[in-house]
Parts: sequence; C-alpha cells; structure tokens
Amino acid sequence: MKYNFLLNNSTSLYLYEKVRNLPIYDYHCHLLPQEIYEDKEFDNIGEMWMKFDHYKWRLMRSCDIPEEYVTGNASYYEKFKEYAKAVSMSPGNPLYHWSHMELSMYFGIDDILNEDTADDIWNRANAYIKENRLSPRKLMEKANVKLVCTTDDICDDLAYHKLISEDDSISCKVLPTFRTDKLLFFKNSDYFDYLNKLSAVSGVKIESLSALKKAVTLRLEYFKALGCEYSDIGIEGFPSLFYNDDKADMIFSDVLAKKEVSDEDLTGLGGNIVVFLSKLYKEYDIISQIHFAVRRNSNHALFMKKGPDIGVDIMDDSVSTRPLYDLFNAVEDNPKTIVYVLDPKLLPATVLLCGSFRNVKPGAAWWFCDTKKGIRQTLETISELYSLGSFHGMLTDSRSFLSYARHDYYRRILCSLFGEWLESGEYNDEKNAIVILKRLCTFE
Amino acid sequence: MKYNFLLNNSTSLYLYEKVRNLPIYDYHCHLLPQEIYEDKEFDNIGEMWMKFDHYKWRLMRSCDIPEEYVTGNASYYEKFKEYAKAVSMSPGNPLYHWSHMELSMYFGIDDILNEDTADDIWNRANAYIKENRLSPRKLMEKANVKLVCTTDDICDDLAYHKLISEDDSISCKVLPTFRTDKLLFFKNSDYFDYLNKLSAVSGVKIESLSALKKAVTLRLEYFKALGCEYSDIGIEGFPSLFYNDDKADMIFSDVLAKKEVSDEDLTGLGGNIVVFLSKLYKEYDIISQIHFAVRRNSNHALFMKKGPDIGVDIMDDSVSTRPLYDLFNAVEDNPKTIVYVLDPKLLPATVLLCGSFRNVKPGAAWWFCDTKKGIRQTLETISELYSLGSFHGMLTDSRSFLSYARHDYYRRILCSLFGEWLESGEYNDEKNAIVILKRLCTFE
Amino acid sequence: MKYNFLLNNSTSLYLYEKVRNLPIYDYHCHLLPQEIYEDKEFDNIGEMWMKFDHYKWRLMRSCDIPEEYVTGNASYYEKFKEYAKAVSMSPGNPLYHWSHMELSMYFGIDDILNEDTADDIWNRANAYIKENRLSPRKLMEKANVKLVCTTDDICDDLAYHKLISEDDSISCKVLPTFRTDKLLFFKNSDYFDYLNKLSAVSGVKIESLSALKKAVTLRLEYFKALGCEYSDIGIEGFPSLFYNDDKADMIFSDVLAKKEVSDEDLTGLGGNIVVFLSKLYKEYDIISQIHFAVRRNSNHALFMKKGPDIGVDIMDDSVSTRPLYDLFNAVEDNPKTIVYVLDPKLLPATVLLCGSFRNVKPGAAWWFCDTKKGIRQTLETISELYSLGSFHGMLTDSRSFLSYARHDYYRRILCSLFGEWLESGEYNDEKNAIVILKRLCTFE
Repeated sequence: MKYNFLLNNSTSLYLYEKVRNLPIYDYHCHLLPQEIYEDKEFDNIGEMWMKFDHYKWRLMRSCDIPEEYVTGNASYYEKFKEYAKAVSMSPGNPLYHWSHMELSMYFGIDDILNEDTADDIWNRANAYIKENRLSPRKLMEKANVKLVCTTDDICDDLAYHKLISEDDSISCKVLPTFRTDKLLFFKNSDYFDYLNKLSAVSGVKIESLSALKKAVTLRLEYFKALGCEYSDIGIEGFPSLFYNDDKADMIFSDVLAKKEVSDEDLTGLGGNIVVFLSKLYKEYDIISQIHFAVRRNSNHALFMKKGPDIGVDIMDDSVSTRPLYDLFNAVEDNPKTIVYVLDPKLLPATVLLCGSFRNVKPGAAWWFCDTKKGIRQTLETISELYSLGSFHGMLTDSRSFLSYARHDYYRRILCSLFGEWLESGEYNDEKNAIVILKRLCTFE
Repeated sequence: MKYNFLLNNSTSLYLYEKVRNLPIYDYHCHLLPQEIYEDKEFDNIGEMWMKFDHYKWRLMRSCDIPEEYVTGNASYYEKFKEYAKAVSMSPGNPLYHWSHMELSMYFGIDDILNEDTADDIWNRANAYIKENRLSPRKLMEKANVKLVCTTDDICDDLAYHKLISEDDSISCKVLPTFRTDKLLFFKNSDYFDYLNKLSAVSGVKIESLSALKKAVTLRLEYFKALGCEYSDIGIEGFPSLFYNDDKADMIFSDVLAKKEVSDEDLTGLGGNIVVFLSKLYKEYDIISQIHFAVRRNSNHALFMKKGPDIGVDIMDDSVSTRPLYDLFNAVEDNPKTIVYVLDPKLLPATVLLCGSFRNVKPGAAWWFCDTKKGIRQTLETISELYSLGSFHGMLTDSRSFLSYARHDYYRRILCSLFGEWLESGEYNDEKNAIVILKRLCTFE
Repeated sequence: MKYNFLLNNSTSLYLYEKVRNLPIYDYHCHLLPQEIYEDKEFDNIGEMWMKFDHYKWRLMRSCDIPEEYVTGNASYYEKFKEYAKAVSMSPGNPLYHWSHMELSMYFGIDDILNEDTADDIWNRANAYIKENRLSPRKLMEKANVKLVCTTDDICDDLAYHKLISEDDSISCKVLPTFRTDKLLFFKNSDYFDYLNKLSAVSGVKIESLSALKKAVTLRLEYFKALGCEYSDIGIEGFPSLFYNDDKADMIFSDVLAKKEVSDEDLTGLGGNIVVFLSKLYKEYDIISQIHFAVRRNSNHALFMKKGPDIGVDIMDDSVSTRPLYDLFNAVEDNPKTIVYVLDPKLLPATVLLCGSFRNVKPGAAWWFCDTKKGIRQTLETISELYSLGSFHGMLTDSRSFLSYARHDYYRRILCSLFGEWLESGEYNDEKNAIVILKRLCTFE
C-alpha cells in the first residue's frame, strides 16, 4: 500500500506520523496463548491466512468458491490461490485492504494480489517466512504489541497464561479474559457437563444458584490472580427480564432437577445471573465487555457439518437496545462497561444509551462494523452523541497474529478524520488533537 | 447534463468511457409486452412521463400539487407543467436527475426544466417525438437494450411474449418473469377467482395443495418454454413459519372449504408454498427474486379511490430479515436467489445474510433505494460485507421506456466509486477494475 | 470560528452570504416567556450555559465529570471550567461547534475553548455581559429573531404571553404552542390533579370524554386568541389503536371511576384522543407537530434524584413508524402535520410515510439528529424521498437564548449542500436554488 493509504490530506499524514509507531494494547482478541507460548515457526502463508480466518471463508463463499477450498481438504497452496482470486474481485472489502497491508508489513511485499501474481507472492512470502523464521512472537514484536487479552472460558485452567507469565523472554503481557457465555446456555445438551466442569475447577458443588455464584466468584479471583482485567459476554438473545434472587434460585433448582422450565423463566434466570456478574465486576474492578446483536451459525446445514466460527455468523437485526437499557437500570451502579454492537443501525441508540449511565462506554467498531466505513461511522457517532476523547480505542478481535494490521488501518482512518477536522477548522485545537489521538491509539 | 455528471475525477471519466455504451440487460422491469409489440408512436412527452409513473406522482404530492394534476383529469400538458414546477423545486431528488438525463438522452434537450422553460421544452420534445416517430422500440434501440424481463402473473397467457418471439424485427429479447404474489393472498376477496383462473390456464382442478403445486409447476414449464429465467415475489408480511406438507395440505383444504383459518395457519401455509417455490426454482434453474420489506397502498383513502401503484407504497420498517433467514434454512439447497430490500436500515443485515448461504446474492438498490446515495450505499455495503465482483448488476424496475437513463445513472455512480478507489489507492488493480465494471454493467 | 466554517467551496460561501442575515422564525423552542418578558440581565456565562442545558450535562457525563459539576452544587465558575475541559476533548460534537459559535456571535470571542483558556474566556465573557448588559431580548435582537413559538401545557394561563403581546417594546412575536402530552398520561399519579386543573382553567367539569374534548377545544380557542399556530406532542409509546367514540367514552368513564383498565384499553383511548386532536387542529387550522421515538428519563436512579430533562433521554429504537401510519389513515383528512423522528434509522421510512399523506411533512433534524451529519442526512433524505423545496425549515428546540447559533449552523450546512450540488452540476438551477434557500431559512 502507499505510505499515505487512507490519509487524504497533509494534516492526516502529519498526525499519523505521531501515532503510527505507538505500541499496541490489544485488549480483546481470540489468539491462543498456547501458540504464543510454543512460538512455532509458521510453515507457509496459506496456513497463516486460511487456517482459522472465517472472514476470508465468508468472502470466498460470496465469490462462489467451492467449500473444498474454503474449509475443505484442499491444500493451503490451493486455498491461497483461490483466496487471491476472490479478494482481487472484492474492491472495498476490508480483506482487500488488510491482506495487502499484511503482505507489506510482515513480508515486505507491495505487489497487487490477484490470480496472476498469486504464485509469485506465495513463493516470496514463504521464502521470507523461512529466512526470517516468522513465528507468533516475531510478528507481535514487529507490530510492537505490549498487551494481549485473550478470550477464555471461565473454566479454563489458564495453564499457558501461567507459563507465559513465568517466561521472562516474553515481553508482551498476555492476560486472560473472563468469558461467561456458557453459564447462560441452559438449553445446551452439554449444560450439565459444563456445570460439572465448573464444579471441578472451582471446588464448589453446584447444587444451587448461590453455589453457582460462589463458583463463578472463585473463578474470577483465579483469573484476576493471573492479571485478568476484562470480562466478556456475547450471547444471542440478551435477557430483558431480571428475576430477583429468590425467584431465580427456584428456577435454577428446577433446571438442576431437569424439570420443564419455560423460556420466560430461563430468561429471568439469565437476567439474574447477568446482573450478578455486573455487580461482581464492580466489586472486583473488572471491565465488562458486552457484545450485542449477534446471531450465530446462521446457516444451519453448514453448522451441522462444520461447527461454529466458520463465517456464517450474522447480525441479529430483530433486536433493539432495550435489554441493555433494562440491564443498566437493574444494576444501577454499573461496573466499567464497554458495549459493542454488531448492527450499525443500532449505533446511535447504543451510543446514547451508554452516555446515560456512568461508567458505560460505546466500544470500537466490531466485526462486520470493522470496515473503513464502519470505523468512520463509529468514530463519528461517538463524536456527535458521546465524546470521542472518552472512547476506549481499538482492539483486533482476531484469531491471527497478522491482524495487527487492523490497528494500523484504524489509526489511518482516525488520523484521516482528525486531519479533515483540523484542515476544515471544525476542530482547531491541535494540541488536544494530539492528546486525544495518542489516548485513542494506546488507551492506557 | 454535463458529460461528466456524477463523475468526480478523471479516472471515473476514463472508466465510464469503457462502459457507457455497453448493452443493457434489464432483467427486471414492469414494461408491458403489448406496448413493445404494438410499438405505437408516442403522442407527447406528458403522456410518456405522467401516464404511469408513480415516482412522479409521489413527488408532486410532496409539493402540494392538487390530485387533479397528479392522477386526475387534467390534460397531459397541464400535468407536465405542474411536474416541471415540482421537479425544479426538488434538488437532490433522483427524478431531477432522471428527468434531465431523459431530456438529454432521448430528446437532445439540455435545458434546465422549470416553470419558466416548461412550455418551450414541451414544444421541442413533442416536435422531436413527431419528427423521429419515437416509439417503445425506438427508445429501446437508442438505449442499446438487449434483454427485457417483464413481470407477469403466473396465470398470464403471455400472448404478446409469443408474438414478440416470433417477430424477427424485434432484436431485443423480451422474456416473462414468474410472479407468484397472488398465490399467497389467501384473504383477498377474489382469491377463489384467482384459483379458478389458475385452474383454467393450467388444466389442473385445484382441489388440494398438491393440485395447486402441480398447476404452478405446469405454469412454470409454460413460462420456461417462452424463455423465462427469473421468478419474483414481493409480498408484504413474508412468512416466517413453514408448515410441512401434511399440515399445509390440511390448512389449504380448510381454505378451499371456506372454513375459518387463523392468521398463524395462513402464515404456515404460505411458508410451505414459498419453500415449495424455492425448490421448484432450484429444479428448473430459475433465478428467484425476493423483494422484501414493502408496505403497499399506505394511504387507504387514496387507494380506495385510485387503486394500487399510485405512489403511496412505502417501506415496511417494522420487519427484520428473520423470515428470510428462516426461509433459506428451510430450503437448505437454495436456488439462485437475489434479495432486494426496501428499507436501507436492513441493508447490512441482508447483505450478510446472503453471504451465509450459497447461491443467495444481495440485489441492486431497489425503488426508494434507487437514488444517488442509495446506489452508492448499496454498492459500498456489498463491497464491505460481501464481494462487489459477485454482484448481479443493475435493473430498472420501471414502467417507462425512458427509464434506461437509470442504467446510465448507475453506471456513473459505479464508475465514480471505482475512480475514487483507484485514485486513492484503496483498490489498485486497474485490470480487474475493468473486468468487474464490465461484469456489473452487463452481468451476462 | 472561521468565516467559511462548514462552507466547503466558493459557491457555498456565495449562497451563505444570501441567507446569513435573514430573520429567524423559531417555530419550536422551550424558552420561558417569563424570561423574555422580565428580560433580566445575565450574571455570567456559566449560568447562561450550565443552568438548563441538558445537552452539556450529557456531554460532561460522557467525559466522566462528577455529577457535582454537572447538575450539582458546584459554582457556575467551576461548572464552566469542567465543561471547557469536556468540550475540548469532544471534537466532532455539535457542542464543540455551538459553543465556539456562541462565543464568537455573542461575545466576540474567537479563541479555542479548553482547560488552558477557560479562565481567560470566563473573565472576558463576563466582562462583555456586564458591559453590554446582555439579556434575553438583547440576544434575540442580535440574532434577528422575529418569531418564537414556546411550548406550553394546554392548562397554562399564558400570562406572560399576554404581557408580551401588550408590550410594544418587544418586537419579536412570542406565541404559545399547544402541548397535549399530559392529557395522555392516564397512569401518572397526578393525572386527576391534571384533569382538575384542566377543569378549572376551561370551566368545564370533566365527567366524560366529551367533556374532556370540550375543555380541550376551549383551551385551543384560548391559545389561538393569543396567536397560537402550532400544537405539539412528544409522548413515548405512540398509540397504534384507535377506539371509536363509544368505546373510548366507556374506557374514559372507567378511568374517571378509578377502575382497573388494561393497557390495551388505555392505548385505544389514547388513540381516540389523538385522532380527536388531529381533527380539531384541522378545524382550527393549527399545525400539528409530532415528536416520535423518544424514551424519557432512561436512567431511573438519576431521574429519581434529579427529575426530568437532565440529559438522560434517549431514542426509543424499538419502535417502527407503524403507529403514525395508523394515525394518518385513521384521521384521513389530516391537518398540516410535521413529523420529527429521533432515531436516524427511521428517517427514510418516516419521510416516505409523510409523502403518502397530504399535508404531512417531515420535520427538521431533531435533538440527537441536530448535528452536522444528522442535519445533512435529514436534508438529503428529504431531497431524495420527498421534495426539499417543501421542507418546513429549521427550529431550535432549545432552552437557551444563545441557541440561535444553531440556525447559523443549519444555514451553513444547507448552503454547503447546495454549493456542492451547483458546483458538481447535480442541480443547476441557480435561480431556484436561491428561492429554495430563502424559503428553507425563513419558511414564512
């Protein structure tokens, strides 16, 4: 990409120079601590790009590329070639930008990726990997990453987090995040297995709701001892009903007794647990992340064949922010909370809602909003309806060590916005512009 | 209009020169085959503009012009004059652009249309019509139209399609489209008349749901024999419940027996039929078009007086894409499908949903989205959340032979977008840019 | 601010010069007639800015400023300082623009407001106030305000409106607006007090629905005698059910008898009253303003402490325009009506709905839409889906005498849009451009 990619005037470029090399604090991602710890050298760019990346899988399906080359048995070389073809036909797609940025940042390749160039780029990228012995940590160092918060089920033993924290050779902090979704999947066939697991790791026999809460509290203490600063929840159908403890206890007892429980009662129980979690986070000074308005595994047939996280998750466009409004009122004294919303039509209402409650902030452009227009729209909405200076800044939400390019993407879009403001005189406080930019790039 | 209308840099202009003269494949419109066949010369521009065009009627009402000049008994001259006044007060309206483009493309008139110039333009346009003996086919030839897919009820005898196909003097293909809406209007007072008609044209006595399906299948074979490639459905309240055949059979029997049937059961029956249609299209290789989120005849009093298609249809902004999600899962192996959505707030969710299912594509900016901003937003959303190279391209959805100006409008907006991308370096694959542009302008 | 603030080309600037000094007709605001009448000199800029302005309070909370400095007991000096800090960290926020515009327009201060400059600006602004004896009327004269329509409960005695109308020294017309919300708050604990008050001021004993309607009619006549031209309603949960008079009478009798009444019946009763009001406005030639999709006092705990209008109102993003559609059909022969909508996602559907009914118009960008992007989006949507020439123009909706800066803000954005159109050739009717601009700036 050109040095001034997305920077559309000289002020943008000037501002970008101030922030481009700032460290990255990736406070929300899906990297595997085991991979960071083991730090295995990569084999080829096909594996690096195609193994886990459901963004790419979705794009390839949009381009009618057979499933064999998407999640099937084709070789990484074949998958890479098919992806090159797909992405070259996808101008304006963030993957077009990210892929070229990654080629440039990590492999020194500034060519256009398409069907004609795919073989050459395949060879040069792989040669570069071998020559430079590219590995997870190498990539993180290259991107100047100082903090990574992974996403971890509350039953996780965090073994690799421990190993990483004891290893002086790893300069980047790698902290666990307390992810509670499975606590609320009462109807899952393996819900009781999950409770048993939680029992085992916490040492608390879960015979009541208060025992469950005790177990969760112990797990949070365990996580916190390993540096945990954030929690996360990203369930479908956020509860909009909040039973009091007595009623929720009764319902939970019925669940444990495998009695028939109505959907409404399960919602009220879920609501009780969500309120409990918020209060727990307040007590333990944990930042609560809420991912809202997602519908998982939308293609049922493909989900049955391939499982979750395959690029068929979508927005749940049937919901309003009402459940969040109810939650924040139910909790009253809310912990620090960041709300991410997947459907852009909810963005103004969400940002306003956040501004009505102390400690609640709108989050970075998430997933399908993490595009050039989406980041811009998120920044502008926060500017107009909240205060941009109070925004928590960027994360990757990614499963790939190459995804730090997304921080550069964000920084360019952010600097472009400030550049326009300063040049047009809509904002004319250059000194504070730099203060805000630095805060929004590093947040700590 | 200026030669560079909507083309905001030199690259846009360069790209536009590559596509401006490509043929037009108008795969969805509401032209009448009878008018194409009979090819009567037009009488005056007032008739050409004001006879059927509910877009213009809506605009005139927004400008407080009395109904007499809209759908009433005023002369075409008077209507034309009132329209000129209205449109001149409507900067930014697509009708402002289209009207001036049509004057320029078809009548060689590049003046500004307003109250002062209306008389002069009226005279010159009508003189041009006489001199050049303008007729439907003349206009289609002038616009280089190679394919027109009309919209036809499945009971239609397609008599004029037959005549056209047998007439060597008509170079443009004119194909029927299989429109099934009326099959699902169980509550309409003339539903039984409709079934009788379907019986008569198919030769199948409709005494059960399977007989209905047999009749529909025979009609599709009849349409296909005349070249039909597309179906269409654009009902309000898309079903979100899909009864199995047994249950749907029972409900349909009740309908036939004129028994009381609940709304829920009618929805479940409708869902069964919609799933049946999808599977039928898959079998017969028909592209299924779904027009979603419309509310018809919103002004009840005016509808009672004037009937349908008078410029008071609106978006149904109370729906989510959930019914489509349910449909695509119910069908599983979907036919080629194009989804058009009327409310722009549904656009991101719709585009994503399409990308989760093989063969399902987001459609062109439809009706109230067919504006400068709407086309741009549609192209950008498809780019960011799908793949622009896989987009099916433009149609007119129009009732006027002058509406091919809308293709030029689209091509200009499309080239403008690519021009910006290429000049800013956001997309830098000039060769593939041309490939994609040509595909998106001709799609076949 | 710079002289060309928000005017991004020379044509915009040229157009702006044509309208910048036109008088202001502020047909909807929340100014207090008592303050206009008494015309007390202001004490300091802190009071002027921080006393009532819930926009500023919201922003300060977004910036984590303690409640003490927001609505609490801190001095105006302290509040001003904290606000300066907050707004300086809020680029892109309308308050950033408005505050600087107000400093420039009313105090001749063109400095950047931030923590460093706050003291100096505080001193200079206050000196200016003293020196120029700034008072409400001074500010209104400075802004060339010719009409102010306040917002008044229908029980209001309008004493200050009377005094103003009898005072020749006040050149600006100050008219009451007929605000009916409280009529529909059947469940409020003080509903019967309200009915008693209405009884007292109208002289009608409210023993039935028809008596209520009689009382309301008399109040409207009273308002009209004092020049009232507009009514207003801005309730949550707009009714979508419209009982006929008989049914509504019965329900209202139950309400009066303090019997248990279902929510559905209250909605149907409310619907009856809303239809009655529309017909009344038609008869009395009153323009009906509808403010739609708001949720009041979203933070319950803060509302309990501080009361209403404290900056925690939000969009109700769970509604569709369906209730308005039902209302306009129920009324049929609608009065002149202006619809304001708070959630931008409803904008296209609302604008289209308006265009389906005679006399119904989309309104100016309201509250959280009254931002640079929101005004632009409102103007563009009205242009594309309605007719910009028929737009009713700008208002302030404000509680501050300084807020006339918002008219200048709007005029700049409007001229910027027309400037772009004229320069690009998208609209090329310069003469009508000026006609439309003048109409959209003064509307009368």
